[in-house]
Amino acid sequence: MRVLQERILKDGRIYPDNILKVDSFLNHQVDASLLKEIGLEFRKLYEGTEVTKILTIEASGIGIAAFTADAFGCPMLFAKKTQTKNISSEVYTAKVMSYTHGKVYDIIVSKEFLHKGDKVLIVDDFLANGAALEGLISLVKQAGATLVGCGIVIEKGFQGGGDRLRSQGVRVESLAIIDEMTDTSLQFRQ
Amino acid sequence: MRVLQERILKDGRIYPDNILKVDSFLNHQVDASLLKEIGLEFRKLYEGTEVTKILTIEASGIGIAAFTADAFGCPMLFAKKTQTKNISSEVYTAKVMSYTHGKVYDIIVSKEFLHKGDKVLIVDDFLANGAALEGLISLVKQAGATLVGCGIVIEKGFQGGGDRLRSQGVRVESLAIIDEMTDTSLQFRQ
Repeated sequence: MRVLQERILKDGRIYPDNILKVDSFLNHQVDASLLKEIGLEFRKLYEGTEVTKILTIEASGIGIAAFTADAFGCPMLFAKKTQTKNISSEVYTAKVMSYTHGKVYDIIVSKEFLHKGDKVLIVDDFLANGAALEGLISLVKQAGATLVGCGIVIEKGFQGGGDRLRSQGVRVESLAIIDEMTDTSLQFRQ
Repeated sequence: MRVLQERILKDGRIYPDNILKVDSFLNHQVDASLLKEIGLEFRKLYEGTEVTKILTIEASGIGIAAFTADAFGCPMLFAKKTQTKNISSEVYTAKVMSYTHGKVYDIIVSKEFLHKGDKVLIVDDFLANGAALEGLISLVKQAGATLVGCGIVIEKGFQGGGDRLRSQGVRVESLAIIDEMTDTSLQFRQ
């Protein structure tokens, strides 16, 4: 997605340990008009498929999922990272290792909102090692729902999670794939 | 907002301790088309004001803020609940008591994204005792930005936070205000 790649080059900032910060437009301050375009782009990429639910994980996936759900005309569902008092105990759950925060956490969705008949598109802001995505895919499988595919805004191709999932037969569409990253530059996959 | 009140009556569920669950359409599974209407409604309510930034708090405020930002044609910014490795140490911060989770947490926004010149509309899904909103207002004040007002989807009027803020001169627009709630019924403010 050209407008996204240009935006990453313009406003993204690279930090040591392969950290790409896009918090001026994607995951802290958020450019809603870009999110809207991202939602429409996912719609276009998955044209011809039937999608009944957009699934993501809090927090930075939510805005993307909301606009994607609007583009598809279906609801979205966000997995939560800890069990709160206010959520039903009837949940599907998976463990996810967060390399960013250096800990394992549980993700949950209520069984009420993910069903056998659902055709699910998973979306998220980043895909690196694939841990969060595998957790979300596990929730879809537990529900007996069908995974249509994944829509990722920025994939760190050099960390291998996306290609590993593709080799397992999961459809993964990423709007920008970064194949090389140094402390001062990055290179997109063609 | 009539469509919202009807939706609350249709799909909301009441639990003991004044808990209203709207997780089938607002804060777990999310009806994106309703969120879009909510964003447009806030735009209408704040017509004639200048807004340069929508501010909310993760997680359930994000979808609302994204569509509101789209309606206003400005960016949105979501406060985070804990300090992560990937966020600048240059942050504004406030302490918020969560009665839902029974603990105090820090909320932060990067100083980069909230400025003296900003005219801020704060949005959130719920307003009960007002603790989260007061935390967000504190961030706006720390930045020296101007608070235009608050846009709330569901206000629990009987918990008093909204009226306390209004009596302090804060403009609070809530799309549904619940003034009475029993274990089986709820009553909206006219």
